[in-house]
Amino acid sequence: MSTSTNSREKFSVRKLLFGEPLRTEALPHQTVNKRIGLAIFASDALSSTAYATEEILIILALAGTGAATLGLSIPIAIAISLLLIIVTISYRQTIYAYPNGGGAYIVARDNLGELPAQIAGASLLTDYILTVAVSVSSGVAQIVSGFPDLLPYRVQMAILVIAIITLVNLRGVRESGRVFAVPTYFFVGTMLLTLVVGFVRYLLGDLPTVVNVEAVHAGTQTVTLFLILRAFSSGSAALTGIEAISNGITAFKEPRSHNAAVTLVWMSTLLVIMFLGITFMAHQIGALPSETETVISQIGRTVYGEGSPLYLAVLAGTALILLMAANTSYAGFPRLAALAASDGFLPRQLTYRGGRLVFSWGIVGLAAFASLLVVVMNARTTALIPLYAIGVFLSFTISQTGMVVHMRRIGKLKPGESVQGHDTVLYYDAHWRTKMFISGFGAVCTGIVAMVFAVTKFTSGAWFVVVLIPSLVYIFSRIHDHYRDVARALSLQGVPVDIEKRPIQTIILVDDVHAETVRLVNFAKSLDHPWHAVHVATNPDKIEIVREKWRKRIGEGELVILPSPYRLLAEPIRHYIEQIQEQQPGGFVHVIMGHLAMDTYWEQILHQNTAVIFNLALSRMDNVVVTSVPYQIHRDELRHARHIKNGVNNGTVAQR
Amino acid sequence: MSTSTNSREKFSVRKLLFGEPLRTEALPHQTVNKRIGLAIFASDALSSTAYATEEILIILALAGTGAATLGLSIPIAIAISLLLIIVTISYRQTIYAYPNGGGAYIVARDNLGELPAQIAGASLLTDYILTVAVSVSSGVAQIVSGFPDLLPYRVQMAILVIAIITLVNLRGVRESGRVFAVPTYFFVGTMLLTLVVGFVRYLLGDLPTVVNVEAVHAGTQTVTLFLILRAFSSGSAALTGIEAISNGITAFKEPRSHNAAVTLVWMSTLLVIMFLGITFMAHQIGALPSETETVISQIGRTVYGEGSPLYLAVLAGTALILLMAANTSYAGFPRLAALAASDGFLPRQLTYRGGRLVFSWGIVGLAAFASLLVVVMNARTTALIPLYAIGVFLSFTISQTGMVVHMRRIGKLKPGESVQGHDTVLYYDAHWRTKMFISGFGAVCTGIVAMVFAVTKFTSGAWFVVVLIPSLVYIFSRIHDHYRDVARALSLQGVPVDIEKRPIQTIILVDDVHAETVRLVNFAKSLDHPWHAVHVATNPDKIEIVREKWRKRIGEGELVILPSPYRLLAEPIRHYIEQIQEQQPGGFVHVIMGHLAMDTYWEQILHQNTAVIFNLALSRMDNVVVTSVPYQIHRDELRHARHIKNGVNNGTVAQR
Repeated sequence: MSTSTNSREKFSVRKLLFGEPLRTEALPHQTVNKRIGLAIFASDALSSTAYATEEILIILALAGTGAATLGLSIPIAIAISLLLIIVTISYRQTIYAYPNGGGAYIVARDNLGELPAQIAGASLLTDYILTVAVSVSSGVAQIVSGFPDLLPYRVQMAILVIAIITLVNLRGVRESGRVFAVPTYFFVGTMLLTLVVGFVRYLLGDLPTVVNVEAVHAGTQTVTLFLILRAFSSGSAALTGIEAISNGITAFKEPRSHNAAVTLVWMSTLLVIMFLGITFMAHQIGALPSETETVISQIGRTVYGEGSPLYLAVLAGTALILLMAANTSYAGFPRLAALAASDGFLPRQLTYRGGRLVFSWGIVGLAAFASLLVVVMNARTTALIPLYAIGVFLSFTISQTGMVVHMRRIGKLKPGESVQGHDTVLYYDAHWRTKMFISGFGAVCTGIVAMVFAVTKFTSGAWFVVVLIPSLVYIFSRIHDHYRDVARALSLQGVPVDIEKRPIQTIILVDDVHAETVRLVNFAKSLDHPWHAVHVATNPDKIEIVREKWRKRIGEGELVILPSPYRLLAEPIRHYIEQIQEQQPGGFVHVIMGHLAMDTYWEQILHQNTAVIFNLALSRMDNVVVTSVPYQIHRDELRHARHIKNGVNNGTVAQR
Repeated sequence: MSTSTNSREKFSVRKLLFGEPLRTEALPHQTVNKRIGLAIFASDALSSTAYATEEILIILALAGTGAATLGLSIPIAIAISLLLIIVTISYRQTIYAYPNGGGAYIVARDNLGELPAQIAGASLLTDYILTVAVSVSSGVAQIVSGFPDLLPYRVQMAILVIAIITLVNLRGVRESGRVFAVPTYFFVGTMLLTLVVGFVRYLLGDLPTVVNVEAVHAGTQTVTLFLILRAFSSGSAALTGIEAISNGITAFKEPRSHNAAVTLVWMSTLLVIMFLGITFMAHQIGALPSETETVISQIGRTVYGEGSPLYLAVLAGTALILLMAANTSYAGFPRLAALAASDGFLPRQLTYRGGRLVFSWGIVGLAAFASLLVVVMNARTTALIPLYAIGVFLSFTISQTGMVVHMRRIGKLKPGESVQGHDTVLYYDAHWRTKMFISGFGAVCTGIVAMVFAVTKFTSGAWFVVVLIPSLVYIFSRIHDHYRDVARALSLQGVPVDIEKRPIQTIILVDDVHAETVRLVNFAKSLDHPWHAVHVATNPDKIEIVREKWRKRIGEGELVILPSPYRLLAEPIRHYIEQIQEQQPGGFVHVIMGHLAMDTYWEQILHQNTAVIFNLALSRMDNVVVTSVPYQIHRDELRHARHIKNGVNNGTVAQR
């Protein structure tokens, strides 16, 4: 009876573009080891080293591009690394406390309640969008650094890259960890090699200074604490993405908390080494912030020499890891949206699993917002950075504050006791005070950074996020209120229930008289209620033909013709039904329509008439019940029909 | 009974953005006089003077920017003007022959048959898209000429302008002719004034040469016939839009053919004066083709002096008329698409009138394609020109060839005789030979230009259109074949008709038990067939609650629980129905679902569950009939529900 197998064997453009329908049962339940886990979850965090140093230099350049001023990047990078170590230690605790996944949304919901969870959710959704925009913009900047001729096409390239990632994700990839491992380890390999070669040349006194950089205009501000804090904020974009492992703990092999925690430490270690190494190397070669060449490119061509294959490898590796980082948002954004939807804060449909259809909305939405940002900001990483990271630090703060509450709840347990919470199990822990202090200290640090970020970047773009996140939280709460109001309006508590039978008047909508019409009549007769057919005469020439066909082929039941001088479809039906309802108040009007079901997507598009009529005319009429009777036409039937040359019906084209 | 009036009084975001639903009956049947008609239909044609001269100069500059070389623009412009006069005379005849509207598609369909009509249709649809892309790009270039700081944001500005025009058109404007008249006459006024002032200063020997132009790189080619033909092709973009009046004859007051014909002559006269005037003036001031400043801007600031208000008025007027030109495509594209759809060459749904919904697809499609072109071509008019005009000249040629056939058919009539054709009435005309010759001559001229265009512009972009138009024609014919095949497959000729009753098994899909569920049960009971309810247990915690509510509130009929361990929705329903069908082959399975109808659009989005389930699970199952039972909740009911504080059902959130 099922025809899906049948249609799957045939060629279809939809299938080519979007792949087989995703079967949830087939989702890989395989788990990964630490090395693959690092590759999968580290791309977002590690890729931020591609722009973090540069963003520090761009702010410092406001006070001039002298070596002393730009050299401030080194203490700033060290401070950021310390922050990173604090957050890492704190997040290790979250990984052990929430072995089923401890994203900021879940930790906040479990410990702090609805509002903080919504703020964390809004922050994370915003930052998923920004991760795509920033990573793609920076990736394109790396490519453009190697091929300056492409500079005028930066925006177009970025949009193209987003389009490709989107298509790949709509199509769905069997996410094989090994495939992910290649770009991550390629980037780590080339970057570490570059730093080592650079460091050796530095020790040998053989490291040249970078030449031919079209640097940004050197500013004339004085070095103030505010400027240093601004540079610090920009560089703290290096911390984005380190929460990825705590979201994905369930993907690790058992003991999964242990494996995830070890991977987190590996990742943070690599991140600190690379970030400090790049910042140091940038200083040694005298790298200058530039609109046309990234700092990574300057380091690469100074260490290896212009045009060296290794230089191009560095650019390729950096562009690739940034692409992978953008790609991770395509998994995270729809997943978090589904989570928020199941709590009633986003449209419920986002929670349905099965079929790619629903999941696709999240992917397309993410791509649209990220593209918009790229276009508005001209694909300039520096313009996007002030919007970025503020949401990340907000969610860090909320998550760690949640952990403080979590540890206090653990502190109330007796030795050996455990309690089943909503999202995890609380086990007694003698060290709860220490852990609470660590989480609290982390929360205070990231909270301060979030505030420093909001203040120092306010005028250059952070104001937008400061407005956006409360707006999103407001929208979420409006949606939640709406569902609650609907629930109350539908509630039957204390209301007498009336399920008595009522009269039903059945109407068949007829456009032409053919096999599909027979099916409709067949169903209407089977229902055994009073029925008649209705034809809306959008084409007056057809009236007599339809009437004649009806008489000859159906031969029973009344056929009512509704005139439609303006070729309207919806209005005559609506008026006719209103007349019937006046004559028979309290009854149901039952409208039966055909729905031609085709094997392929493009054929189906040509036959969405039922849906169109329903939306235009009937979806808002009370007590009007609409039935859609499918009539399946398979490709082989169509092919067969095509071969009946000079057939009796040749030349007549059905209206649907 | 109707609730639309009710909901219209309330605020809604949809209404704010898209306006009231369009009532076809309310479409203005008012007609316009010649002056307003000129303003409405001339913007497309007149606006092409904003770039035609410049495009000639850009090609000539390939052979250097000397005065002698660029001076070739004058004879080229004269040749183009002659062509324009020929086409005008020829199209006057079409206006008289097709008083009900004589677009190329209709003339071709009426005289030449299906294939030429489809080629004309594909050409015109393509050119509507290009009109938007070219006009918006050129309009932005005018603005950027006055404000060079905006240069890096050209693409973004163009996309923003397209977005605004799109929103305005989705919202729908009561197209008042007077509003259209302002920009058209403002442009004509400022441009003619500029030409007169410039000409007077030229006669007084007081006209300076333009300075500070960042000219395009002067090429080193020699002046060949090929180069001159290429420049001629570029300049012939000036002819785009002159067919607009012949499409819109019915909008004119009676005698409409006469009024339309007079307006056409006025328009062409203005077009020739402005095009030749601008080309002459550009030569006198030594205007240079430039990537950063339009020729119009160079003329404006040379004639009036830098920073003069009149200079800014010229730029504003030019930008405005280009915007109006882009806007005309937003009416033409959906109208032509509907015409092709009613002939079965595009999806039928495009033909439905009433409600803005369907018409919107054409507008959104046009905007998407035009934006894509703008992004790919970096909003550079010069890059878009090779794609443009080839379609226009193809449709000119087809239309005039159709008129040759038309005149020959008239030649076969006896004096005084008239014949009712498909799209117009053929009257005897003694001068049919002369008229046939004029149309034929016009067809030959435009046909040659189309070929010159395709050859000289082939490598710079015309190849794309040369590939695109046949592809579109192929797609149109595939769609047409599909409708024909479906008609044959559905045909009942010679097939025995079986409309016997069959058993019906009714299933109610139940998510929760509330007022909507009562309505479903009410309808199922009224049908009087065997029925039971089904609940898909995506949330196992809810099973007992639903079962208990069912027992207490409904108290009859069986409630079947379908387990769904993976939280799938579609699959369990489908498998269950397949089981029923196995037990009862040949019967109908009748699935009844609720549909919550809300007053506002954003609320409705939160309740599209029925549509989602239908699309995911049931739309392709044969003999499964799906009924949607609406349950209307109005805003005041929701508001009422919100005020039942501490109500009995407080805190419980319904699942739909």
